[in-house]
Amino acid sequence: MDLSNPLLTLPGHHYRDQNGTDTRNYGGLDGLPGIKTLFADILAVHPDNVLVGGNSSLTMMYETLQRACQFGVPGGSGPWNQDTQRKFLCPTPGYDRHFLITEHLGFRLLNIDMTDSGPDMNQVESLVSEDASIKGIWCVPLHSNPTGCCYSSDVVRRLATMKTAATDFRILWDNAYAEHHFEGAKPALENIAEIAMTADNSDRVIQFASTSKMTLPGAGVAAMAGSTANIADAKRHLSVQSIGPDKVNQLRHLAFFGNVEGLRTHMTRHAQLVKPKFDLVAEILQHQLSGLGIAKWSRPKGGYFIDLTVQTGHARRVIDLAGRAGVRLTAAGAPFPYGHDPLDRHIRIAPTFPELEAVRQATEALTTCIRLAAADD
Amino acid sequence: MDLSNPLLTLPGHHYRDQNGTDTRNYGGLDGLPGIKTLFADILAVHPDNVLVGGNSSLTMMYETLQRACQFGVPGGSGPWNQDTQRKFLCPTPGYDRHFLITEHLGFRLLNIDMTDSGPDMNQVESLVSEDASIKGIWCVPLHSNPTGCCYSSDVVRRLATMKTAATDFRILWDNAYAEHHFEGAKPALENIAEIAMTADNSDRVIQFASTSKMTLPGAGVAAMAGSTANIADAKRHLSVQSIGPDKVNQLRHLAFFGNVEGLRTHMTRHAQLVKPKFDLVAEILQHQLSGLGIAKWSRPKGGYFIDLTVQTGHARRVIDLAGRAGVRLTAAGAPFPYGHDPLDRHIRIAPTFPELEAVRQATEALTTCIRLAAADD
Repeated sequence: MDLSNPLLTLPGHHYRDQNGTDTRNYGGLDGLPGIKTLFADILAVHPDNVLVGGNSSLTMMYETLQRACQFGVPGGSGPWNQDTQRKFLCPTPGYDRHFLITEHLGFRLLNIDMTDSGPDMNQVESLVSEDASIKGIWCVPLHSNPTGCCYSSDVVRRLATMKTAATDFRILWDNAYAEHHFEGAKPALENIAEIAMTADNSDRVIQFASTSKMTLPGAGVAAMAGSTANIADAKRHLSVQSIGPDKVNQLRHLAFFGNVEGLRTHMTRHAQLVKPKFDLVAEILQHQLSGLGIAKWSRPKGGYFIDLTVQTGHARRVIDLAGRAGVRLTAAGAPFPYGHDPLDRHIRIAPTFPELEAVRQATEALTTCIRLAAADD
Repeated sequence: MDLSNPLLTLPGHHYRDQNGTDTRNYGGLDGLPGIKTLFADILAVHPDNVLVGGNSSLTMMYETLQRACQFGVPGGSGPWNQDTQRKFLCPTPGYDRHFLITEHLGFRLLNIDMTDSGPDMNQVESLVSEDASIKGIWCVPLHSNPTGCCYSSDVVRRLATMKTAATDFRILWDNAYAEHHFEGAKPALENIAEIAMTADNSDRVIQFASTSKMTLPGAGVAAMAGSTANIADAKRHLSVQSIGPDKVNQLRHLAFFGNVEGLRTHMTRHAQLVKPKFDLVAEILQHQLSGLGIAKWSRPKGGYFIDLTVQTGHARRVIDLAGRAGVRLTAAGAPFPYGHDPLDRHIRIAPTFPELEAVRQATEALTTCIRLAAADD
């Protein structure tokens, strides 16, 4: 967060954007043109297909689905609320707050296995081709939370082109870690919006991104991108719901980043802070656990998490043991719908926040707990 | 807006609030304690009953009603969506964006006549006592948009204590102009939350306020206040929908205002800018139109608007004529549900934005158009 402290005195006395818009006043439902361009560059779409909102992409996802439930979406046949059997696909392990949104809005959640290259597409295709009540799928295409996997070309193409029984199926494409690479080059990611358009499925994809894990988590800027019809539909509802986003904060971020190149330079500074922590966790896990057959773990090249897989039935016990030793971990089951890990074996590690020495101690303690749990068997 | 330009470089390098909370990070669903206290002072409630959000109270109203439609509210018997006959009371003339929210969410809108002391309570009581599908009423209790009337003690008491057929009736109490007085002392306003509580109707009232017309309209801070049950219910949903509000902007406003006394001092500077414009409009209307029997107008002591009533059937014509003369006014009918002024006679005047000389010219031209329309009869 300290890297972004210059934001705390911005935008200074320049409150007009490049077009002369007074950012202090009402209006501008879809965001300043400059910030639309910035997010368009991040998501590889045209700025006209971008809508920039407030401080949270999660809120934009919630609102997108709440609008679909209340009013329906382009290509559909009415409010999703009318389908009392509505369901949503949840690749697991995944992001608990995604799953919670769809649970809260009355969807039944269906687990999809996550592979090293994205959701298991055989499972996905088999389900969506049969059941018109399956309305969508949650996706984090780069450095997925928590496994860190990046979606392969094949997975993206199949998602964009597959046949769905629902005419109004939606992919919620949360590209939360689009610029969060700490190891090697930026991973290749197919342009899902273009592929979907070519396949005549342009309304299927709604993308999201935010600066929450770039600048200040609670005071950043979030955006969504979609087809012309999806953005027009969102704006039609937002014109009733909103007086416009906080454009001063958008200008503040523009002043801080300059453009997407400035943003990427900023993210290399993040990577320099984050990478040693991931390296340290990997080193300790390797040293303490490799060859024992009691755990495996993901080796992300970006994002914020490591997925640690222990023996079936051990995750909850390990997390409890660690808690008693003073190491607070994400609750067991959290990366699964309804908080239920069917094999009770996934542990999410989030090494970015603590200082390096604390990461070392916590990881050492965690490996001890894993060995203790294994020895109890 | 210029009065609030110091906000553009705040909060500076102090990003922790008085309790040491790092405002940059996630969390704090109901806002910083300091900003909760500030809004509690404005609304005369306890800080525990306040929830501070993002940049728009209108958005908080929309979300309050969207949640009621999707999930229901404390004291009710399920989602309001289930009542396909749901209705909402709209004191008229009133605020178009209020009416639009309820129209958009599928309520039938019922006109209530506005008197000099608030909505006509005989009409209100007669309707709500009979029809359980009437779920609520829009209220702007001080300097109501657009008439400028302030609700009398009798009106507030009757609203808070009346019998309603709906067990989950809600008063959306938009105290948008709680601190916006430019003439004389702050008007007395009964404490509706206290009266409702005494009458065992504490869940009936949900209050709203914001700094939109105090600091920067698009980049302010908004809040709601309600009973313990209402706030807990809102937080239960917000915990899914939100990662927390922009606390840096809350801290920014705390740094700018200090406390409610600082806020009131700030508002006296607003009053000094705004009052001459209202005085000028009143003077021109008086000089050009008094005694002719073709128009009357409200004389607000605060807020942002004047309601000008012309002869029945003349408003649209006058607004068209003024438009052709280069004076842009709020669309005819806007202060009424569905944009329909049944007697076509109300014109909303908003004199705060233009410079004094522009206000003079526009008002002179407007009076000419009124006389022309009258002469055409």
